[in-house]
Amino acid sequence: MLIDGKHYRTIWEKDAKVYIIDQRSLPHELVLEEITSSSSMVTAIKEMHLRGAPLIGVAAAYGVYLAALESKNFADFELKLDALLKSRPTAINLAWAIQIQRQIIDPKRAPSENAMALKNNANKLAEEDIQFCKDIGIHGVKLIQDLHKKNSSRAVNILTHCNAGWLATIDYGTATASIYQAQAAGIPIHVWVDETRPRLQGAKLTCFELKEQGVPHTLITDNAGGQLMQNGQIDICIVGADRVARNGDAANKIGTYLKALAAKDNNVPFYFAFPKSTIDWSIGNGQRDIPIENRDQSEVLIIDGISSNDLPAHVNIAPQGTQARNPGFDVTPARLIDGFITERGICAATTEGLQSLYKEFQ
Amino acid sequence: MLIDGKHYRTIWEKDAKVYIIDQRSLPHELVLEEITSSSSMVTAIKEMHLRGAPLIGVAAAYGVYLAALESKNFADFELKLDALLKSRPTAINLAWAIQIQRQIIDPKRAPSENAMALKNNANKLAEEDIQFCKDIGIHGVKLIQDLHKKNSSRAVNILTHCNAGWLATIDYGTATASIYQAQAAGIPIHVWVDETRPRLQGAKLTCFELKEQGVPHTLITDNAGGQLMQNGQIDICIVGADRVARNGDAANKIGTYLKALAAKDNNVPFYFAFPKSTIDWSIGNGQRDIPIENRDQSEVLIIDGISSNDLPAHVNIAPQGTQARNPGFDVTPARLIDGFITERGICAATTEGLQSLYKEFQ
Repeated sequence: MLIDGKHYRTIWEKDAKVYIIDQRSLPHELVLEEITSSSSMVTAIKEMHLRGAPLIGVAAAYGVYLAALESKNFADFELKLDALLKSRPTAINLAWAIQIQRQIIDPKRAPSENAMALKNNANKLAEEDIQFCKDIGIHGVKLIQDLHKKNSSRAVNILTHCNAGWLATIDYGTATASIYQAQAAGIPIHVWVDETRPRLQGAKLTCFELKEQGVPHTLITDNAGGQLMQNGQIDICIVGADRVARNGDAANKIGTYLKALAAKDNNVPFYFAFPKSTIDWSIGNGQRDIPIENRDQSEVLIIDGISSNDLPAHVNIAPQGTQARNPGFDVTPARLIDGFITERGICAATTEGLQSLYKEFQ
Repeated sequence: MLIDGKHYRTIWEKDAKVYIIDQRSLPHELVLEEITSSSSMVTAIKEMHLRGAPLIGVAAAYGVYLAALESKNFADFELKLDALLKSRPTAINLAWAIQIQRQIIDPKRAPSENAMALKNNANKLAEEDIQFCKDIGIHGVKLIQDLHKKNSSRAVNILTHCNAGWLATIDYGTATASIYQAQAAGIPIHVWVDETRPRLQGAKLTCFELKEQGVPHTLITDNAGGQLMQNGQIDICIVGADRVARNGDAANKIGTYLKALAAKDNNVPFYFAFPKSTIDWSIGNGQRDIPIENRDQSEVLIIDGISSNDLPAHVNIAPQGTQARNPGFDVTPARLIDGFITERGICAATTEGLQSLYKEFQ
């Protein structure tokens, strides 16, 4: 999608180097980072230079490629893969991408050939993700179209939480794909953007994306969405997912569950948008078994932004010595979810719903 | 309650001047403000040097006293009262206190005698509020005691939203009164403090209070409470109220509704604590008719705190030009509320429940 009118992807490879947008500097500055080792990729994932489940998956795939380039032997390679695997615990895409890459390796090939195969496959995963996002948008836009048909007197009001935009994928985004499709189709839309504490990905990344793309939007605190739904100001909620269990429970950024409760209470449809790689068929009960990452308390206590003279700055918000708890995700039970928007179509948030689209997992 | 080990109230009168704690500087600095005119009181209320429904009520009562001191004639006095009335729209206590003060005025008395009567009555309202808060605590602590009896293996975990502490009243607080009573009774407790965006009254004021008072507590983002409830880490929610309707619907700081939904979904008891003055018997349906204040978007876009070198500072969190919406309150429907903790006891969140305690409003 666009930054300053120029088309970007979030990650790309060139001459045995991987390039990413260091999202920590957004929206205030566009910083591109060159990544030349798997350990730098671990750092980039762990410290959230990049984030978003689909992007983490592709980044890990490139990390495996870099690990192959630099590894002296098999044990060394496995250590590097293990570090990649442990860089973030909640997104299933990370483990999935590493597993896919493992299957590419052929012990009968020369190391350089394996590395080349891993690079090509990482590129393929990136292209696939872009196509998945496009397809998610093509399916999801129908929901927005229907809402517009029901009430064409005003823009369709869409709430989204966190950033499941193109910055969380390679391009187009998951939750935002339908929004960008609606914009392209000329459907009047307006997006309510949850700021998404603690890291403010909504305020920083989603607002940035929508601004650069010219989509009308309004920032709100995470507390406000319920009140807006009570007052008929939200027509649909579309969010991304970090991991979806076989029973339809869906893990996403902390706070998603609260919005899903409010949506149910006010008859506002609530959808998760994600590609196949987000589904964890091995987990039967998401609420019970999806691991939730507890992140550093400094994310709660210290808020980053820019000062009035346009320099990066941060403020402490609590009394000195205050302790904070920082769960990064929550799991929305399937019963609160109206449906899943995937690259293969829209389905119910149930095992049967998922299996209707993914027949390979019967 | 205590600041640096010394006892304070949030407002007091001395020699025809009113003194308040300017809460905008907390938790980083203790600033006392001298208020010598009703227009300064309007500013103090409007710009939130002080906040909290009970405190706003008493502050308005002192404001009426200052207006009487300075008014040249009746029309002038009425103008000043009107400005006080309009300083904040949601808290019923404001209108209530001004009405009570009006009834004190006796046209047959000399202006100076009326002023003296208004001062004495404002002092009386302050003392009453302190007694109400004490009594709220005496009733509410029973809920905490019962939870402790059910599971004495760990501290009782209480979630609170915003600041309904002593800084929102004259002393003791409403939501916190039960907490301070529990502490005094030696019941092991731990408080989860919602940071409460946009103004962060939880992070800034509730954490400050609890720290100064020595109550164990942990700060969380507004997004996190649902996840903690899903995981059994919250035993009870106690919040304050800005206005309670006759049908039991309760307006409180934006985001309260989302926590009440999560509490209901996880069988966590959810209580509002407030004195009689918070009840608006004239409103039959709170969800429909309690007015909600839309506050300035700068509260969402700019976050105040202190810099790493301990100076007051603020940061912009969103891209330049971002628009924000900032509803200050939401209304929790009575069906989500387990009960009201008042100075007269605990009752159901229904007309009948309220009338069982306030028989004067049959």
